[in-house]
Amino acid sequence: MKMSNNEYSMWRLLRRLYWDIADKGERKYYFYCLISQIPSSFGNMLRARFCAKFFRKAGKNLSVLAGTRFRSMEKLKVGNNVVIGFDNFIQALGGVTLGDNVLMGPGVKIWSANHLYASSERLIREQDIELKPVLIGNDVWLAANVFIAPGVELPDGVVVGAGAVVNVKKYRPYALLAGNPARMIGVRGEQKRGGDV
Amino acid sequence: MKMSNNEYSMWRLLRRLYWDIADKGERKYYFYCLISQIPSSFGNMLRARFCAKFFRKAGKNLSVLAGTRFRSMEKLKVGNNVVIGFDNFIQALGGVTLGDNVLMGPGVKIWSANHLYASSERLIREQDIELKPVLIGNDVWLAANVFIAPGVELPDGVVVGAGAVVNVKKYRPYALLAGNPARMIGVRGEQKRGGDV
Amino acid sequence: MKMSNNEYSMWRLLRRLYWDIADKGERKYYFYCLISQIPSSFGNMLRARFCAKFFRKAGKNLSVLAGTRFRSMEKLKVGNNVVIGFDNFIQALGGVTLGDNVLMGPGVKIWSANHLYASSERLIREQDIELKPVLIGNDVWLAANVFIAPGVELPDGVVVGAGAVVNVKKYRPYALLAGNPARMIGVRGEQKRGGDV
Repeated sequence: MKMSNNEYSMWRLLRRLYWDIADKGERKYYFYCLISQIPSSFGNMLRARFCAKFFRKAGKNLSVLAGTRFRSMEKLKVGNNVVIGFDNFIQALGGVTLGDNVLMGPGVKIWSANHLYASSERLIREQDIELKPVLIGNDVWLAANVFIAPGVELPDGVVVGAGAVVNVKKYRPYALLAGNPARMIGVRGEQKRGGDV
Repeated sequence: MKMSNNEYSMWRLLRRLYWDIADKGERKYYFYCLISQIPSSFGNMLRARFCAKFFRKAGKNLSVLAGTRFRSMEKLKVGNNVVIGFDNFIQALGGVTLGDNVLMGPGVKIWSANHLYASSERLIREQDIELKPVLIGNDVWLAANVFIAPGVELPDGVVVGAGAVVNVKKYRPYALLAGNPARMIGVRGEQKRGGDV
Repeated sequence: MKMSNNEYSMWRLLRRLYWDIADKGERKYYFYCLISQIPSSFGNMLRARFCAKFFRKAGKNLSVLAGTRFRSMEKLKVGNNVVIGFDNFIQALGGVTLGDNVLMGPGVKIWSANHLYASSERLIREQDIELKPVLIGNDVWLAANVFIAPGVELPDGVVVGAGAVVNVKKYRPYALLAGNPARMIGVRGEQKRGGDV
């Protein structure tokens, strides 16, 4: 039962390429994939310049490090002095807002759309997609590999430790979060230990 | 103790390149790396067309999103309507089977080969590799960053939450799994909470 | 409040590109990004040859698999027979040492520099960066997606399970670590279960 070559015939592929490029929303990803891996400050600034044109809002002094992916860039609002880290992936379909001075480590993912699967009678792919906006406050640091689930709101000053999976919950400002699922392990400004999240 | 340039001399490198390209199993990865980052529907269909030729079995309506890696493609069986997500990595050396309507989020890894390390007397790299097939049922959703260990079998309808590390264990159909290590946190069709895994 | 095009004007971008390329430390990343995705043994050897020139120390028989990133390569010491895995990311700013026969799975990250955030009165981006060296012993296996925090020391023979987040703590030789945060779940040479981390 090999996939027949006719299913994705060359003709169908080329027509699809034409549609992608004719679509204003998709076309930019073709250009972005050409610059996505350019290293160093030049790459960071070139991507920032490009992204700022397509984000819903982009503050000053934005850095977009190499390998970063976006979906629905046009629903992403970014404050001043934000660093979007190496290999980050922001799916902004449900709306994502990053405050000022947000720092993101490598491999961070922020998601704002989810499959619904409440029914076990119907296939997940035939159930709806749920959109839930994500709000990240000012002066938040998301360390390496953090995953932010749809609907999460992080108040100002929160620090999220490496590999934490942050679900929808009430978090206090300046909370230190860690673990999968993430829970509060301290408060910034009150902690005893050094700074190794 | 710098590595001497002679260890990987240009001559040795070029000979190696020749061997890689002469090897039917390796050659395809050179082509695949050229198309691996092409965005949008065109990229998804082009990769699907390419992969379908090399998978052991490929169903209809396959999507292979950007950045995905494969090892031992020839041991991967994929059902109908499968979405292999952004930056997924499937190591199919021990055999991997994905059912129909499987959805995979970004950064999912499925592994079917493991280093053995039972002996502490011998180096891990000198011990064997263990192959254990992975079986993923129909209508399964693996959310972002999920890791599936060698030997795992997931029955139909299972949903695995973001960042979960799924080890070999008996799981019931339609289970909701989350955490590292993954444990059952509910059952699809019976859950109270929304859908945020 | 769109970012003004003047902030990252073409002139400023080109000047930045010139600075990057004029800087001996940065220039190499431009070349590295061209070879970073080359597949198979040829790619692994080509990257190893390249990296060995810039690492502080590189042993024999090094493999650097595709998609791997480095920062501060010049502070990375690597022993003999080391495999740096697919899509690994080593930030060696604070110094990173890998012993002999270290094996790294896909998606491993090793970090040696951290933001300090003890004060909640000042922005994290205005607080210092803390450098803490990482030491990985001989015959250590870091499985898929492992994160090694700044300052971690792993003795000889340690095995770290997939997705584990390893913080600074005292670990014994040949320990089996797993989870987020990582804790000891057994000892190599004494374990009962097979080898599925």
